[in-house]
Amino acid sequence: MTDIELPDGSPFGPDNLPYGMYSTGDGAPRVGVRYGDIVVDLALLLDDPVFAAPTLNPFMAQGPARWAEVRERIQAAIEGPVPDEAVHPVREVRLHLPIAVADYVDFYASEHHAANLGRLFRPGSDPLLPNWKHLPVGYHGRAGTVVVSGTGIVRPCGQRKDPGEAVPAYGPSRRLDIEAELGFVVGAGSALGERIGVESFAEHVFGAVLVNDWSARDLQAWEYQPLGPHLGKSFATSVSPWVVPLAALEAARVPLPRQIPAPLPYLRGGGHWGLDVDLSVEWNGEQVSRPPYREMYWSPAQMLAHMTVNGASARTGDLFASGTISGPAKHQRGAFIELTWGGSEPITVKGEERTFLLDGDEVAISATAPGPNGARIGFGEVVGRVLPAV
Amino acid sequence: MTDIELPDGSPFGPDNLPYGMYSTGDGAPRVGVRYGDIVVDLALLLDDPVFAAPTLNPFMAQGPARWAEVRERIQAAIEGPVPDEAVHPVREVRLHLPIAVADYVDFYASEHHAANLGRLFRPGSDPLLPNWKHLPVGYHGRAGTVVVSGTGIVRPCGQRKDPGEAVPAYGPSRRLDIEAELGFVVGAGSALGERIGVESFAEHVFGAVLVNDWSARDLQAWEYQPLGPHLGKSFATSVSPWVVPLAALEAARVPLPRQIPAPLPYLRGGGHWGLDVDLSVEWNGEQVSRPPYREMYWSPAQMLAHMTVNGASARTGDLFASGTISGPAKHQRGAFIELTWGGSEPITVKGEERTFLLDGDEVAISATAPGPNGARIGFGEVVGRVLPAV
Repeated sequence: MTDIELPDGSPFGPDNLPYGMYSTGDGAPRVGVRYGDIVVDLALLLDDPVFAAPTLNPFMAQGPARWAEVRERIQAAIEGPVPDEAVHPVREVRLHLPIAVADYVDFYASEHHAANLGRLFRPGSDPLLPNWKHLPVGYHGRAGTVVVSGTGIVRPCGQRKDPGEAVPAYGPSRRLDIEAELGFVVGAGSALGERIGVESFAEHVFGAVLVNDWSARDLQAWEYQPLGPHLGKSFATSVSPWVVPLAALEAARVPLPRQIPAPLPYLRGGGHWGLDVDLSVEWNGEQVSRPPYREMYWSPAQMLAHMTVNGASARTGDLFASGTISGPAKHQRGAFIELTWGGSEPITVKGEERTFLLDGDEVAISATAPGPNGARIGFGEVVGRVLPAV
Repeated sequence: MTDIELPDGSPFGPDNLPYGMYSTGDGAPRVGVRYGDIVVDLALLLDDPVFAAPTLNPFMAQGPARWAEVRERIQAAIEGPVPDEAVHPVREVRLHLPIAVADYVDFYASEHHAANLGRLFRPGSDPLLPNWKHLPVGYHGRAGTVVVSGTGIVRPCGQRKDPGEAVPAYGPSRRLDIEAELGFVVGAGSALGERIGVESFAEHVFGAVLVNDWSARDLQAWEYQPLGPHLGKSFATSVSPWVVPLAALEAARVPLPRQIPAPLPYLRGGGHWGLDVDLSVEWNGEQVSRPPYREMYWSPAQMLAHMTVNGASARTGDLFASGTISGPAKHQRGAFIELTWGGSEPITVKGEERTFLLDGDEVAISATAPGPNGARIGFGEVVGRVLPAV
């Protein structure tokens, strides 16, 4: 048996305990929970067959009472000695996609981001479209290309049309960008025809991950009318390997910025689900942005209520992301197209003037949130390196 | 043992043999093949464990050589006596969703449809947007709400804003519509970073289904800018229970309408994948439209090549649909918004003037295609009845 040592100030203390899938050697993925710098095997720790699955989905499907019960059992078990074979230093394991993604929806919930893109793409007109303050605008993305942090991001090819040219050309994207986002994972789904009200958010949502919604701005600009983004986004979406339980974010709950005009009744109430999460974006190891999640206009509870108000079902494994997180200040913008104002105002990264991503670049997004009694809750990070087009 | 009798002129003869999932009594879904008016149990007919699965996906994943081999074995076995317990009249079984849908993408490949909607939504400007003839425009839909024919369609609620009003209201859709489409099912997927060229279409696509992409036009009109349709579509998408194998559509292959300007090289060649499929749309039992698939501008091989040209992977169970099928003539339009010109030109259905769908309405879309030697290949039908909003 082993006593796990928790490093001082670790953001993975007993109030966090995020879930993930890990493997060692050539072994199959297994469910683990992170405690300090250790991955603890849950099937071995708790002797529960639901943790013998190759994803978190069967456990997530069991619903909020089981999530709470298991969390308490982990908190109790992890303080004492745990079986040696359940203990792996996190640096010695391979981490996998934690969930089998059912549907993936990406929202557009930051007013600062939406207004910045409006100014860039529709100069001279209102930065926000008329619907923006009435509903959380969102669209479906490609679930099959959600990948775990560390997966190489091959520069996508596709059609792009330069403003001065009459016809599009085919080739690698020249405006490859990131979007720093928070993603929410549905554990307990809903039936077709059922609505998930804002007040029922915590009964359905299991936890949160970091998301990098890689975006090829040139492909996107040419393709997106009238049906929205497609190939400019569908080549890859990276998520962090650790799903932070919603219960670990209780101390991070804050009121939303004021919503004027007041939204329709189905989007009102349900308690505060603004979240005081601080993100950090590093470009080749240099911090270039600190997006504040607390600035988001729409809450994740409103996103889920909106997504199901038409009777659409939600499924275990559904992932919905916030859209780019941008604050009011320039150093709080969560996409390079905003940070560099469409590429017209380069920023300095490691001493070089930069706009969009070059081959070999690495982007790491990390985040923390307040926990109980002054502790910090860590999300870990979502990392990706750009590989040359093939 | 039973000799199955094939009714004269049946569109489900030995050159068709579509696959589906059926059950009897309280039993679990089983893989069946349709022959005439009979469902033949494939696990019993062929003694192959891949057909003991609850969806077609494991068989579809085995790839084109296996699809061809199994098709030959079925064609041989079905002519002789088959085990009694493998034989069920189709009217006595329950039919289920034939595939586990991975990602669902909906295209917009009919020039007549796209131009009609352009005229309705953007009067006075070019009916087609600048990108339309350069790439097959498409977007991701909600995989989790793809339902099998016969599933009731609850009228969706959501936000709609009448042109004369300043703010949106919440309520049941007042402009509920259909879209008659053909859908293509990926059997053998592709890896992240791999492209599926137009010439490789038949190595990846297992077969085709009929699709009714139910659309709440009022929700859609208010929400769709700038990220595309979401709640106006995500409440339900119905598919026919029978997957017609691609091999059964060989005799239906026809050249596309001429594509001017010539598309970029990655969208050229690969043989003719225009398809001479005739659809029929019945509204409460009265035929109101006959959409001709042969009029589609973009081929399904071009759709799949485009969808993966950025390196996005395809998975077993991916479903991609053509978008509304509309021909040049009024009686060939595959959506009621086109048939009734935005509701301004009602049509007569069973003696009543009608525009959009009322509660209790039933829509049935069926289709046939030419088979070898003058035979017809049937798709069966996709049916849905509108239920009141809840």
